[in-house]
Amino acid sequence: MTDSPPPKGRQPGRPRHVTPSADYLKRHEEIVEAAAKVFQEKGYGSGSLDDVAAALDLRKASLYYYVHSKAELLYLIFERAIDGAIEDLEQLAISGSPAERLAGLLRHQVRTVASNPSLFAVFFDQRPHLEDDQEARIRDKERRYLGLFVDAVDAAIGSGSIAVENSHYAAQLLLGMANWSYKWVDPDHDDVETIADAAVRLVLGSSKTGGDVR
Amino acid sequence: MTDSPPPKGRQPGRPRHVTPSADYLKRHEEIVEAAAKVFQEKGYGSGSLDDVAAALDLRKASLYYYVHSKAELLYLIFERAIDGAIEDLEQLAISGSPAERLAGLLRHQVRTVASNPSLFAVFFDQRPHLEDDQEARIRDKERRYLGLFVDAVDAAIGSGSIAVENSHYAAQLLLGMANWSYKWVDPDHDDVETIADAAVRLVLGSSKTGGDVR
Repeated sequence: MTDSPPPKGRQPGRPRHVTPSADYLKRHEEIVEAAAKVFQEKGYGSGSLDDVAAALDLRKASLYYYVHSKAELLYLIFERAIDGAIEDLEQLAISGSPAERLAGLLRHQVRTVASNPSLFAVFFDQRPHLEDDQEARIRDKERRYLGLFVDAVDAAIGSGSIAVENSHYAAQLLLGMANWSYKWVDPDHDDVETIADAAVRLVLGSSKTGGDVR
Repeated sequence: MTDSPPPKGRQPGRPRHVTPSADYLKRHEEIVEAAAKVFQEKGYGSGSLDDVAAALDLRKASLYYYVHSKAELLYLIFERAIDGAIEDLEQLAISGSPAERLAGLLRHQVRTVASNPSLFAVFFDQRPHLEDDQEARIRDKERRYLGLFVDAVDAAIGSGSIAVENSHYAAQLLLGMANWSYKWVDPDHDDVETIADAAVRLVLGSSKTGGDVR
């Protein structure tokens, strides 16, 4: 594919109301992936659009054909991360007993965050860099995400698997248990599956850690 | 007491190897308290030494007699917070059954963080602003703090109150459950005791939420 900048006289970026080509989408995806790597390695503050362009052997002017700012890249990274996780959670939310479903959600959340703490450090700590409308869209997705946890907690309360009364608080506490791992997990030394087991055992006892919810 | 700046020719700040006076200590304490309020209200980034001086009706030159930088104030705030919490935890760690002790520690952690989320946002997110030696001292205290949780988890495993296998991971997960609350608790709308109850019930069931460990 060509990496030529957009023709003069046209605003950079994909023209509105035009279906993007497969090539465009593929390159766009590559850019988001490369940006995630750059921000993981250098941190969001130090990573630059130049670094992203260099990682893909693109000129910076060509990069601007796809994205307009570092903040937009940040948004795209997290939209992709959260959309993928919501899909996973929706699958987990319809399988097994209430206890197994809750175990599956918690295990998934620990795995997601603890296997990529540096990426989630960007997600959880760099939110103030998002534009207002991007922040609002991520907040909507997070509300849906939290809702899936609240539903699973309600079902587990209904089946007597957990003894908590306030399912909203319980869901936030379970997410916290998993999310906080970005602050302490060392991917070179810690074992993510053992951490996920510990989380499930803490909340559901020893019987709900089996492979069927993995 | 006087607020005059230190005499010329002497480094600002308390001379080393001299026992500070009661007046000095009292004013020092007032400054740390005022700084905590300023950083809570304005955030660490926007709050300034000028704001701290203004809150106490001190001249900035006088403030420098007590502290040398915003980072030092940050360190002093957290040293005070963590020292106080360690004292509380050490008291809780010697009373009641293993399950009650663990419930007490978890409840204490939720109360501490959830009743002051804006202060803990500074603590958890502004750590990179600490000097290396300050960071090392806070890290030592945190290790002791985590150790108290690990000991309580080990005892609760021993008594069969929880079914987890890795007490180090379990302690980190419990701290995370509580600490993450700084990201979502709204002090105007959420009830800290209900959150603490939910945390204890999630981990220890309904029987360990009683008043004796409050």
